[in-house]
Amino acid sequence: MADMRLLLLSNSRNYGKGYLEHAGEAIRDFLSAKVRDVLFVPYAVVRVPWDDATAMVAQRFRELGYELRSVHTAADPVAAVRGARAIAVSGGNTFHLLKTLYDTGLVDAIRAAARAGTPYMGWSAGANVAGPTIRTTNDMPIVEPPTLDALALVPFQINPHYTDATIPSHGGETRGERLLEFTAANPGKPVIGLREGSMLRLEGNRVTLLGDQPARLFLAKRDPWEVEAGGDIGFLMT
Amino acid sequence: MADMRLLLLSNSRNYGKGYLEHAGEAIRDFLSAKVRDVLFVPYAVVRVPWDDATAMVAQRFRELGYELRSVHTAADPVAAVRGARAIAVSGGNTFHLLKTLYDTGLVDAIRAAARAGTPYMGWSAGANVAGPTIRTTNDMPIVEPPTLDALALVPFQINPHYTDATIPSHGGETRGERLLEFTAANPGKPVIGLREGSMLRLEGNRVTLLGDQPARLFLAKRDPWEVEAGGDIGFLMT
Repeated sequence: MADMRLLLLSNSRNYGKGYLEHAGEAIRDFLSAKVRDVLFVPYAVVRVPWDDATAMVAQRFRELGYELRSVHTAADPVAAVRGARAIAVSGGNTFHLLKTLYDTGLVDAIRAAARAGTPYMGWSAGANVAGPTIRTTNDMPIVEPPTLDALALVPFQINPHYTDATIPSHGGETRGERLLEFTAANPGKPVIGLREGSMLRLEGNRVTLLGDQPARLFLAKRDPWEVEAGGDIGFLMT
Repeated sequence: MADMRLLLLSNSRNYGKGYLEHAGEAIRDFLSAKVRDVLFVPYAVVRVPWDDATAMVAQRFRELGYELRSVHTAADPVAAVRGARAIAVSGGNTFHLLKTLYDTGLVDAIRAAARAGTPYMGWSAGANVAGPTIRTTNDMPIVEPPTLDALALVPFQINPHYTDATIPSHGGETRGERLLEFTAANPGKPVIGLREGSMLRLEGNRVTLLGDQPARLFLAKRDPWEVEAGGDIGFLMT
């Protein structure tokens, strides 16, 4: 069985930049020239028609040298996943993504494909669902999936768009405080907060943090700590 | 059967102010001199021991002329709710609150008590659970309740801490965009965004917006609109 291969992006668009503009090199390095066709999963997208969302993402992938078609146009979505050479899962609303993955039977299909070595990439919500659960999403639970359990491709929780900033003159917890609440309620479950522009690349048990910024790690009963970009954080896999 | 009576606060603490400082007059007017003892529900609180959270809230209620004891110290929580003269539900994490309400059997007990006329007040998470579901919470789903269905004391969704502001130089949706996603995914379900300092007071079918700020209303297929403080928004009850 081939090693699992993942590219998990915190976000699709760095502030003031174009769609996946910051991630072009990382995507090309990950998919390489061996892949030509990518299967797109638009289920996180709520207010834009999936055809339109697909067209926008396909244009960016075409610039990078890949043809992208969407699973929502496939007659048999499960078969499309089984036959995919690579899978790309869009950001949007994580609850909407997970519910639709369950509704279409794709949770098991994508998990099996990724574990068998099909390259899986996702940004924001699409990175979030790679963890054991979506309990560290920032999104609003606008719909109710049958469970918050997700793909569990990695054993640690992911918090995309991690930031230490807050809204000026507004009450409410910081992101760090929310994740400390998660670890208090879920001892033993580590969380990695991926700042904007950051990515995780996983090859087998090797996990590398890409981008310019450190990531912040949270685990019950110890203070959060930072890991530097470029570092191997494979210890999270155990 | 007595009219239902609710006081639903967006938040516990206005920026730079003390705990429930902004709401003292509204609480006294709501509970009146007829109530002396208030049953407190601290289940939304995650990182502070419930004894400590209770002590802090009890001090504030004592200043206002009420004795507060917490349901978490009751031998039989359901009996405590049935015997309560008034119920006050704390803010914190809405998922943690709802899960614990289900774990303790208090969802049915509180719903029945409030519908029979026991005054119910809640702030932030405690206001959120008064709606049909918690699908418009801002909180992180750190734990998984059996369902997102909540007390359904009112037929409309509540979004506490509503704000039009965003984190500077950070991607991600505005609160308004998140609520538009909710209405897109849930046509026919209205949402009221309660800004910091705002409160809803319900007496039977009369619903009044208290505080200094307008609230923002969201419903599928129309633009969000504002209702002014002081206005009757009983139309939301139909």
